[in-house]
Amino acid sequence: MLRVMTQGEPARGRVRDFAIRPGQLPCGPLNAITDVTGVLVGHVTLIEGEDTRTGVTAVRPHSGNLYQDRVPAGVSVGNGFGKLAGVTQVQELGELETPVVLTNTLCVSRGLDGLIDWTLHQPGNETVRSVNAVVGETNDGLLNDIRSRAVTPGHVLSALENAVSGPVPEGAVGAGTGTVAFGWKGGIGTSSRRAGEWTVGVLVQSNYGGQLTVCGVPLDLAAAPSPAPDGSVMILVATDAPLSDRNLTRLARRAFLGIARTGGFLANGSGDYAVAFSTHPQVRRTSMHRNPQAPPVADLANELTSPLFQAVVEATEEAVLNSLFMASTVRGHAGRTVEALPLEPTLQQLRRAGVIPG
Amino acid sequence: MLRVMTQGEPARGRVRDFAIRPGQLPCGPLNAITDVTGVLVGHVTLIEGEDTRTGVTAVRPHSGNLYQDRVPAGVSVGNGFGKLAGVTQVQELGELETPVVLTNTLCVSRGLDGLIDWTLHQPGNETVRSVNAVVGETNDGLLNDIRSRAVTPGHVLSALENAVSGPVPEGAVGAGTGTVAFGWKGGIGTSSRRAGEWTVGVLVQSNYGGQLTVCGVPLDLAAAPSPAPDGSVMILVATDAPLSDRNLTRLARRAFLGIARTGGFLANGSGDYAVAFSTHPQVRRTSMHRNPQAPPVADLANELTSPLFQAVVEATEEAVLNSLFMASTVRGHAGRTVEALPLEPTLQQLRRAGVIPG
Amino acid sequence: MLRVMTQGEPARGRVRDFAIRPGQLPCGPLNAITDVTGVLVGHVTLIEGEDTRTGVTAVRPHSGNLYQDRVPAGVSVGNGFGKLAGVTQVQELGELETPVVLTNTLCVSRGLDGLIDWTLHQPGNETVRSVNAVVGETNDGLLNDIRSRAVTPGHVLSALENAVSGPVPEGAVGAGTGTVAFGWKGGIGTSSRRAGEWTVGVLVQSNYGGQLTVCGVPLDLAAAPSPAPDGSVMILVATDAPLSDRNLTRLARRAFLGIARTGGFLANGSGDYAVAFSTHPQVRRTSMHRNPQAPPVADLANELTSPLFQAVVEATEEAVLNSLFMASTVRGHAGRTVEALPLEPTLQQLRRAGVIPG
Amino acid sequence: MLRVMTQGEPARGRVRDFAIRPGQLPCGPLNAITDVTGVLVGHVTLIEGEDTRTGVTAVRPHSGNLYQDRVPAGVSVGNGFGKLAGVTQVQELGELETPVVLTNTLCVSRGLDGLIDWTLHQPGNETVRSVNAVVGETNDGLLNDIRSRAVTPGHVLSALENAVSGPVPEGAVGAGTGTVAFGWKGGIGTSSRRAGEWTVGVLVQSNYGGQLTVCGVPLDLAAAPSPAPDGSVMILVATDAPLSDRNLTRLARRAFLGIARTGGFLANGSGDYAVAFSTHPQVRRTSMHRNPQAPPVADLANELTSPLFQAVVEATEEAVLNSLFMASTVRGHAGRTVEALPLEPTLQQLRRAGVIPG
Repeated sequence: MLRVMTQGEPARGRVRDFAIRPGQLPCGPLNAITDVTGVLVGHVTLIEGEDTRTGVTAVRPHSGNLYQDRVPAGVSVGNGFGKLAGVTQVQELGELETPVVLTNTLCVSRGLDGLIDWTLHQPGNETVRSVNAVVGETNDGLLNDIRSRAVTPGHVLSALENAVSGPVPEGAVGAGTGTVAFGWKGGIGTSSRRAGEWTVGVLVQSNYGGQLTVCGVPLDLAAAPSPAPDGSVMILVATDAPLSDRNLTRLARRAFLGIARTGGFLANGSGDYAVAFSTHPQVRRTSMHRNPQAPPVADLANELTSPLFQAVVEATEEAVLNSLFMASTVRGHAGRTVEALPLEPTLQQLRRAGVIPG
Repeated sequence: MLRVMTQGEPARGRVRDFAIRPGQLPCGPLNAITDVTGVLVGHVTLIEGEDTRTGVTAVRPHSGNLYQDRVPAGVSVGNGFGKLAGVTQVQELGELETPVVLTNTLCVSRGLDGLIDWTLHQPGNETVRSVNAVVGETNDGLLNDIRSRAVTPGHVLSALENAVSGPVPEGAVGAGTGTVAFGWKGGIGTSSRRAGEWTVGVLVQSNYGGQLTVCGVPLDLAAAPSPAPDGSVMILVATDAPLSDRNLTRLARRAFLGIARTGGFLANGSGDYAVAFSTHPQVRRTSMHRNPQAPPVADLANELTSPLFQAVVEATEEAVLNSLFMASTVRGHAGRTVEALPLEPTLQQLRRAGVIPG
Repeated sequence: MLRVMTQGEPARGRVRDFAIRPGQLPCGPLNAITDVTGVLVGHVTLIEGEDTRTGVTAVRPHSGNLYQDRVPAGVSVGNGFGKLAGVTQVQELGELETPVVLTNTLCVSRGLDGLIDWTLHQPGNETVRSVNAVVGETNDGLLNDIRSRAVTPGHVLSALENAVSGPVPEGAVGAGTGTVAFGWKGGIGTSSRRAGEWTVGVLVQSNYGGQLTVCGVPLDLAAAPSPAPDGSVMILVATDAPLSDRNLTRLARRAFLGIARTGGFLANGSGDYAVAFSTHPQVRRTSMHRNPQAPPVADLANELTSPLFQAVVEATEEAVLNSLFMASTVRGHAGRTVEALPLEPTLQQLRRAGVIPG
Repeated sequence: MLRVMTQGEPARGRVRDFAIRPGQLPCGPLNAITDVTGVLVGHVTLIEGEDTRTGVTAVRPHSGNLYQDRVPAGVSVGNGFGKLAGVTQVQELGELETPVVLTNTLCVSRGLDGLIDWTLHQPGNETVRSVNAVVGETNDGLLNDIRSRAVTPGHVLSALENAVSGPVPEGAVGAGTGTVAFGWKGGIGTSSRRAGEWTVGVLVQSNYGGQLTVCGVPLDLAAAPSPAPDGSVMILVATDAPLSDRNLTRLARRAFLGIARTGGFLANGSGDYAVAFSTHPQVRRTSMHRNPQAPPVADLANELTSPLFQAVVEATEEAVLNSLFMASTVRGHAGRTVEALPLEPTLQQLRRAGVIPG
């Protein structure tokens, strides 16, 4: 693969472009959350003047009217120092009735506003009077003038409307535009795994700290910053396996094991959440208003979940690494700069440890 | 007490004005959440044209900068079909860093927007970049054109700024302007109890159904509507007892026992939440940024909590009844009218049952 | 109904024998947990000498091999000052693999021992090496010399083997032999409700306090004891509705609303638990070892659960009242006597309040 | 360090004996849970005939009467396929009133029996009538004839009485006598970390699977078994930091991040639990019966917890590794043998990866 070098650095790429292969299970074709058929991702990236470095990322479980055709879902709270909205209804009813929107900490209100608007105005929702919008966040206040609250409901509508299947832009895009992970530029990352006949896809908004570890190798980088471990990570898990909401909650819980493998430990000031959903038609919940004879849901047995658990751990680990490998240096608010993870020193250490070929 | 009669009906009043005394413990002087010293309540009532019947109610644990001087808090979810924002951080850290704002279901976003604005601009919060705003709701979509989303962040700021100690307006005011309980006009209600040296105060936004029961008497009212039991109730519990967040969570859980006494059963479509906090200075959490030598918190032993539990049950029951007794008939959206609870037939049945003097 | 009077007291009977009818929904034919087809109940009552007043009650969801043909289940903790064993596996897997055994606080170990033995030795379980036995308790230490730990694994086996369908003995029997409720003799009680096409049955082991309330009437009994509200209540909820484990958990949560209606408030020292399960074949979980092609479970929609919630509240309230109405005076440990609830004064007050005919 | 070699293998040792140093924080002097002053550990190892390979391990937070002088505590459930008894009361009251006993899955009842006996008979507990005994387990049914249930209450009493401070025997001892981890012989392991002025100690009973990973290096061992990932791990976390029960629960949750670092992913059939407690006198809860003027507890601020979180992750990882490095090959039930982790191949791979000196 030909890469343009800048100052001895290879061009940014995903970890597998560099032969880094966390875990054991095979990836899906895109190695992205969109390997789960039907899932759509949309970004709005806000870079304005010196101070605005933020955005919105929307994940839609399917392209239809989710309010009318709901997907079962579960939530897990790794560390609850965060503002994820919509949690308790997902836990009570075991389902998503809106897409999941990610943005910055102080703009969750805008995320809700846009997501509610969008849902109210989808064809078929003319009489809807209650919407449980799910909006997550991490805090990009180092690079972004977060107190200016630059995200508007209109940005959220754009992210939802822009959402597409196919490859997912990663790094300093969408809700990851201004985030920082392990002292380096973080952002959006994605990955997927095949577990038998099923696919598990993960998308993260990385913004946390700790001792950055790649495939088990704790990196020792000369110019390494000493970031506070506080921060956050939002993790979305999609699968086409027909899981109950309870087993989706169990999947969500495993995502934090992937975070642990990257060197995070869910610090006190970190808002660490995972939301998992299934796209399988057999567990789809069609509104009883639309179809009073809606077939009952039918889900996979507990005994078959372990490979899916492993898939979540591996895909979460790799999604975080992709977010770091794909993010470029960003200069933003108050003249601050957060550097991209230096790839060449990273690769050298991985070669020395035998993780990638010498 | 002289009362102006309208069509044989006494004037609206609180239940104790009619000698109705749920429970056993004595009330505080105002029989209101504001009997807990320092607590402030503010309402903004929105009645515009034919269709807007909604509002905002703000409850402030103290008049200072809550972000810097936090109160321990706990949350309990009776039935999670609701949109209460800010839950997970309260659960993780055991504290409130903003007041609690109540409004309608589709305007939680506006509640957050206003509450975040207000917090960011309080003196002393100039460098704050993260705010866990707590906003609850019930659905007033029967009387209010809820899809028009009439509440603005400005309304929220007003409710916060207007918040005062002293008697609390009840019935069809603030976030209770358009709500419906047991098929009758519900709204805001409040009550308090003394438990030994401590006070427990409760404020509710009533909007749920079931078999309306007053002091154990299931009412059989000629013109009784047959409402769906769905709906919701938001319950705020304040106490001056020095409780840990765990014991405050236990207090919050008991609020639903008070709901049960009124004939509610937390129906599937009901968003039923309780948030409890303590105002005692000994458990106040002063920001470590302000005072790195902040004294550790110190709280009451488990063994001393039972009277406080009983107080929550009783005050919740009475707060709901006050919301019904104080609410007047409201005509609103789509020409719909929801009648006030007919007091005279209610009192007759209570007299017959010996609950109040004949 | 002819009743033999003793000192002006009618013979003990169930509340409906006295025209007391809590709630609105109709009962099943036995007004017992065994109205849920297939459910079996067995008691072992231990009354020995002056000091042993305890026992075992076993509830079997069906008469087959439960370890191989599991039922979905949920648990709710009203107040966790109790020793219910087996909780976390029920929550994780959403199923019962053993019957539920009730006994006294210090003999949960014996309950486990017996239940594990019984399960290991059921035909078909020859290779079983892991058993999640569910054993609950309340504390009968007032009437029973609880420190002597009189219950043996053999008693547990007897209760399991004795379990039958049909009418359920109530009052001072089985695990209710020595319990005390509201200062009067409590014990085992049961009731059921029909909710549309489904049945909900409840069995309680009552041992808690508060202000005893019958159909909304707080009793004022001349010789009323002033019991500590501490104590406990174990509540088992069975239904033939095909519910998911999540919705069974929601059912379990509603049981405490029934407790509230009787005047309980889940005091600090009370161990208050509800376990709910479904017997519907469509949600039965056949071991994958036995049938690798086990059909997936299929359950009722959230929207259809509200009548079942109401049924749980009503049946729990009535089951508690039955436990009090059916229990006779017991004299036990240390010469202590706990009187049966005096029926005639109770009925008088209910007549005066118009709850039963004058 | 001179070591006797057997067949090219070095003698068993703890990981630091081989220069393996997981994480970044320094260890305490013993690198054991007993570095938390006052903590005692006792083992009973049962090796009888061909078939019994099991035992008991008891951890006492202090040497006094724990029932009268309780320690605050929290529990976290990684995956609830296990039988840990006593969970809900710890969660409700936030405290331990008994030591924690570990044994095998089918002998939790014996653990309870012994622990209750021991507590009832401690001087000062003559009138105790309620004991919340905490007993955990993993399943040693591969090497141990678990269905014979060899552990008796007497064994439990011995483990409690034998408990001592100082170095902790590791490997195939106590409750780890028959356990298996990653297909190799697992068992008891311990480790500690210093986080500022505080110490965190961890003890594990390892019995789970996955891809065994040492300091980030996934081991590829020629004779590697392909174990099912099911199994379990019990994790006890002690600290001398004055933490509230809520923050102890947060510590407990972090233990599973240490498990992730070793290559576990909390498989469906795994019972993975962590119990954390604090020994600090300032948060000790003296019985109000003994001292009605008991000073209120006073605990550390949330903001100071992150280093303790990191300490838990690191100490858990190392405790698991110690359990494997210290365990010798065991031959047991049905003629099965589980080999000790082969140290020399392991060390070679760690040398190649640069984890330990070449």
